[in-house]
Amino acid sequence: MSEFDLIRRHFTRATPGALLGVGDDCALLQATPGRVLAVSTDMLVSGTHFFPDADPYGLGHKTLAVNLSDLAAMGAVPRWATLAISLPAADDMWLEQFSAGFFALAARYGVDLVGGDTTRGPLNLCVTIFGEVDAQQALRRSGAQVGDEIWVSGTLGDAALALAHMQGRVRLEDDEFASCAVALHQPQPRVALGLALRGLAGSAIDISDGFLADLGHILDASGVGAEIDFLALPVSDVVRRRFVASYLLSGGDDYELCFTAPVSRHAEVLAIGQEIDLPLSCVGRIVAGHGCFVRDGDGKLIDTEGAGYDHFR
Amino acid sequence: MSEFDLIRRHFTRATPGALLGVGDDCALLQATPGRVLAVSTDMLVSGTHFFPDADPYGLGHKTLAVNLSDLAAMGAVPRWATLAISLPAADDMWLEQFSAGFFALAARYGVDLVGGDTTRGPLNLCVTIFGEVDAQQALRRSGAQVGDEIWVSGTLGDAALALAHMQGRVRLEDDEFASCAVALHQPQPRVALGLALRGLAGSAIDISDGFLADLGHILDASGVGAEIDFLALPVSDVVRRRFVASYLLSGGDDYELCFTAPVSRHAEVLAIGQEIDLPLSCVGRIVAGHGCFVRDGDGKLIDTEGAGYDHFR
Repeated sequence: MSEFDLIRRHFTRATPGALLGVGDDCALLQATPGRVLAVSTDMLVSGTHFFPDADPYGLGHKTLAVNLSDLAAMGAVPRWATLAISLPAADDMWLEQFSAGFFALAARYGVDLVGGDTTRGPLNLCVTIFGEVDAQQALRRSGAQVGDEIWVSGTLGDAALALAHMQGRVRLEDDEFASCAVALHQPQPRVALGLALRGLAGSAIDISDGFLADLGHILDASGVGAEIDFLALPVSDVVRRRFVASYLLSGGDDYELCFTAPVSRHAEVLAIGQEIDLPLSCVGRIVAGHGCFVRDGDGKLIDTEGAGYDHFR
Repeated sequence: MSEFDLIRRHFTRATPGALLGVGDDCALLQATPGRVLAVSTDMLVSGTHFFPDADPYGLGHKTLAVNLSDLAAMGAVPRWATLAISLPAADDMWLEQFSAGFFALAARYGVDLVGGDTTRGPLNLCVTIFGEVDAQQALRRSGAQVGDEIWVSGTLGDAALALAHMQGRVRLEDDEFASCAVALHQPQPRVALGLALRGLAGSAIDISDGFLADLGHILDASGVGAEIDFLALPVSDVVRRRFVASYLLSGGDDYELCFTAPVSRHAEVLAIGQEIDLPLSCVGRIVAGHGCFVRDGDGKLIDTEGAGYDHFR
């Protein structure tokens, strides 16, 4: 199969939302007047972000999901994506599964794949995603205010626990692993939440490098500090049973949203969670100063040195 | 150096053309009313597109240049780019040189680097580029008409000859190699030409996979054939001296433009070449039917089987 056959067979679908999709030097996209473009790019590398033998369907899903998660954290409506792939060989079965996972998620969010590149090399998947948002409503990292509540969607730590099991660092029962592995392999981008938070949340970020590290980006950008109630952090039954604090605080790959909102809007936030059927937990407060202080049930500070994932540390 | 320090030090510059640049979940971009976005992505992989010990400054240039070349082929004004990098290690010197080469070319074309991703893995460079163009003036591949002339900018084959020398397949003198190597390592995207051709050329493509392969894409998209005069193909003195037909016809990495225009506009095309100081050569005609026929000085057909670069063939 040639490079062009491969693109035609696996990556060329209808692009009703684009003027011109795959197959020219560029795609042509008509932006919605009055909105601004929200753009993000994420690269997934075999051996760094996933195991070389990862299920290709799940990998197709995750490759798009981590990018949709960035749009969600900005409150943007997903529109288009490009996909560049480097592959060791043109494996037709693998590509069929990968593209099926990718396009299933794309269809759910109305995302058109409008362009890409396919080349030979170590397995590497790079998506650039495009959404649209009103400039005034975009959920930036810099809008946290002293006194705001800090919220987290879903649960934290499941993906990190599943990874620890796969790496032999913990030993889960089959049913425990199965429930955690969903978070690791098929993360659900919180697009509906991000859209609902427009005009309500002062700041937002998606949790990809670990809760403390990502909250830290909000604090840095906003010039504020935070007090976190460790026992308020939302955990699944499995993570609660296998309790390891570091998975909650610094486990990566959760793709939940962390956001801030005024105390006066507490009930509105809870109502959004009910409406979209996603638990939202208030886990702390924005305070003056800088740094993030995590307290246990007795009010004692928990040591959080070295939390968060960094590819080059 | 951490991942975040690395991004801050090497890849965070002012982004006067963006509402929000590097450092949030997404960049925010305000598109120009009345224009459409032209988007393209290209991935360069160590060992496939360049030698692992390639000069990082040149690589920074080329990584952006090949993407600008796609905008040029669409007649789009360059605006923004994202850059995702996978690196084996955080090599400060390498990154300083790479980013210097990237930003020098970005500055020349007013491109803001608005986002990216930095991760650990085999060396891989993925740029997504954004330009703007009037939808009616975009230079698509599908607009070639029977009777149109076929044009090529600059010269063909220099990059392929330089690569052949580096791979030991030919032996060039030092001065010969130096003159060819510029085409391979520091290709000049033909942005000014693409912009000048709006409203004039019926179709255009950039020559990255080889002249015949890329012209073939125009022919396929337009449902036409072509007659090419081999002796009219533009070559540098070195390529003429070291004459190997395959470098001209199927050598990749030239990043010149191939375009079609009505015969009635022949003089206008030549005038554009003079104005932007870039030789433009009329190399053949669009004909009815399909296929591309290349004739030598005696009018005999040249065998062109297997021309063009394909990553998976």
